[in-house]
Amino acid sequence: MNSGTLPKSIEWVGGLDGHARLIDQTRLPGELAFLECRDIATMREAILTLRIRGAPGIGIAGAMGAVLGVRDYEGSDRHGFLHLLSEVCSDLRSVRPTAANLSWALDRLIALARALPDANVATLKLTLLGEARRIRDEDAAMCRSIGRHGESLIRAGAGVLTHCNAGALATAEYGTALALMYVAHGQGRPFRAYATETRPLLQGSRLTVWELSEAGIDVTLVCDNMVGAIMKQGLVDLVVTGADRIAANGDVANKIGTYGVAVLADHHGIPFYVAAPSTTFDLGTPDGSGIPIEQRDPDEIRRGFGALTAPADVPCHCSAFDVTPADLIRGIITEHGLIQPVSRECILEVLGGGTTP
Amino acid sequence: MNSGTLPKSIEWVGGLDGHARLIDQTRLPGELAFLECRDIATMREAILTLRIRGAPGIGIAGAMGAVLGVRDYEGSDRHGFLHLLSEVCSDLRSVRPTAANLSWALDRLIALARALPDANVATLKLTLLGEARRIRDEDAAMCRSIGRHGESLIRAGAGVLTHCNAGALATAEYGTALALMYVAHGQGRPFRAYATETRPLLQGSRLTVWELSEAGIDVTLVCDNMVGAIMKQGLVDLVVTGADRIAANGDVANKIGTYGVAVLADHHGIPFYVAAPSTTFDLGTPDGSGIPIEQRDPDEIRRGFGALTAPADVPCHCSAFDVTPADLIRGIITEHGLIQPVSRECILEVLGGGTTP
Repeated sequence: MNSGTLPKSIEWVGGLDGHARLIDQTRLPGELAFLECRDIATMREAILTLRIRGAPGIGIAGAMGAVLGVRDYEGSDRHGFLHLLSEVCSDLRSVRPTAANLSWALDRLIALARALPDANVATLKLTLLGEARRIRDEDAAMCRSIGRHGESLIRAGAGVLTHCNAGALATAEYGTALALMYVAHGQGRPFRAYATETRPLLQGSRLTVWELSEAGIDVTLVCDNMVGAIMKQGLVDLVVTGADRIAANGDVANKIGTYGVAVLADHHGIPFYVAAPSTTFDLGTPDGSGIPIEQRDPDEIRRGFGALTAPADVPCHCSAFDVTPADLIRGIITEHGLIQPVSRECILEVLGGGTTP
Repeated sequence: MNSGTLPKSIEWVGGLDGHARLIDQTRLPGELAFLECRDIATMREAILTLRIRGAPGIGIAGAMGAVLGVRDYEGSDRHGFLHLLSEVCSDLRSVRPTAANLSWALDRLIALARALPDANVATLKLTLLGEARRIRDEDAAMCRSIGRHGESLIRAGAGVLTHCNAGALATAEYGTALALMYVAHGQGRPFRAYATETRPLLQGSRLTVWELSEAGIDVTLVCDNMVGAIMKQGLVDLVVTGADRIAANGDVANKIGTYGVAVLADHHGIPFYVAAPSTTFDLGTPDGSGIPIEQRDPDEIRRGFGALTAPADVPCHCSAFDVTPADLIRGIITEHGLIQPVSRECILEVLGGGTTP
């Protein structure tokens, strides 16, 4: 997989007195710059402003942020430590409410700490750091597995469209939707990738195009409103996107615009797939109507490029995500295999009734 | 109609030694600046770089540009004058190949000059200037008429979505799609307008939002990829766009993205209408497959906001327009009335077999 040549999107450097290092994705594609997060405030801001993003990516960032938030706890009061951990996690969870992986990772840290009644504070701190690193490593393994389970969907010569960035930059490594491309490319299979630019924050043009180009994959950039035209021209044979949260019935919340791409794919008879690790499933939410949709600052639309591109006070629609109903999705590729058809039953069957890998 | 308070998008100032004055639309919404075109090179550049745009708008600009191109012809050789006129028109026509109105306006000047075998060069120059002004005034009248024929489609309280800018700025005055809104608003009928930002050149966020806001109309800006989501939320009851060229069977070439909006409207059962003057019809082209689609500079996508928003050399899809098939269009509103259903027969019936107003 050629994404292996990319630097890691996020990793922990050193021991408990170390720090998290992440690629500052707001500075791509112009500059490959790293942000060293030595305290929770820096990590919180990085998550909020999308220096690190992607559902799996912010799960890892959240876990490392929680470690930064509790590692300086003084004293040996275990109860006080657990209380602080809980507060820190509540705060981090609120920063990006849609992605399932953030809550999942924070819940995992809390559950682990509570499950060790005999551990002292020093041990708990080390245990949580180990768990945050494990979440990162497991994510990388899940992404590799998704790539292997899904790569055969990409036929030689196919046109494969993706929306937003569900790549190495959105995860620990390899990505979800893009993992299929990296595996197919690594096997020498030729195909054409199409990346939507993904307004307002241009994760497609800035990040997906960058990482696919770095890996040597043939990629063409399209504005979001060009998807219908290139589908009508017969250029697209397959759509694969990532997911931020998947409800129990298979409804998928993902970057705003995903739903429109799915409707267009349906109209043109093009299969639409979602690639996501089991950590993105939220089986406690029956369907998409229960998924909270993050609303963002209208200036991301009105002043998105450092220039005023609209009257300064015009109201904007600011949903960061939309929900694609399960019946528009041909299949969901997970690290455990392909969920197809997309139904409650098939999801439970493939995931084995749980949401952990 | 409240668009009457806007300055004119384009007009001729003075006599034959005067000039064309137009709003430099590339500087909106930050600044309302005027460009005085005193020679054809300035007008040609203004058309190419979209300082003036919109199919009716560039028809007028083309006609005034042709006058600028021939008014300094020296001597009294009528044949040489007609030859120059023909060359000037060929050059202007090539600048933006998709819009029907540009060719239509230039053909009209040439035909008029040829139809006056006894006129000397001085008379021909004055006649052509008069005709260019008439094309502008007729366009304003056609737009007013389109507004009156279409306004009843906007029900009280409705959500009306438009794509790109088919407004006062795209025409002499009032606009085509937006003319419906100006008439309904002038009658005191409340409704909610939604404007897509329209990448890559943001005619929606820069121009449509600006002119609707100036007119006091309730408008919300959405990114192009949000259309599906707001339709699914039930916020949109009607879609109206303009057109750059309409083939004999009713297939419509319009700003890239129009086709996708039409498919989404169809999926949600929302009526999709096109508003255009008869000058936008090209009855010599049987269907949309024969409409030339202008390809633009990829840097409009990669560097569209003065910043590098994608890797500098990534290939881009650069079509400025797409074609919406007639079967996705509920009706076409012209200055002669509503074409519905959209068929070859109904088009001929409403237009009266001709393409002139």
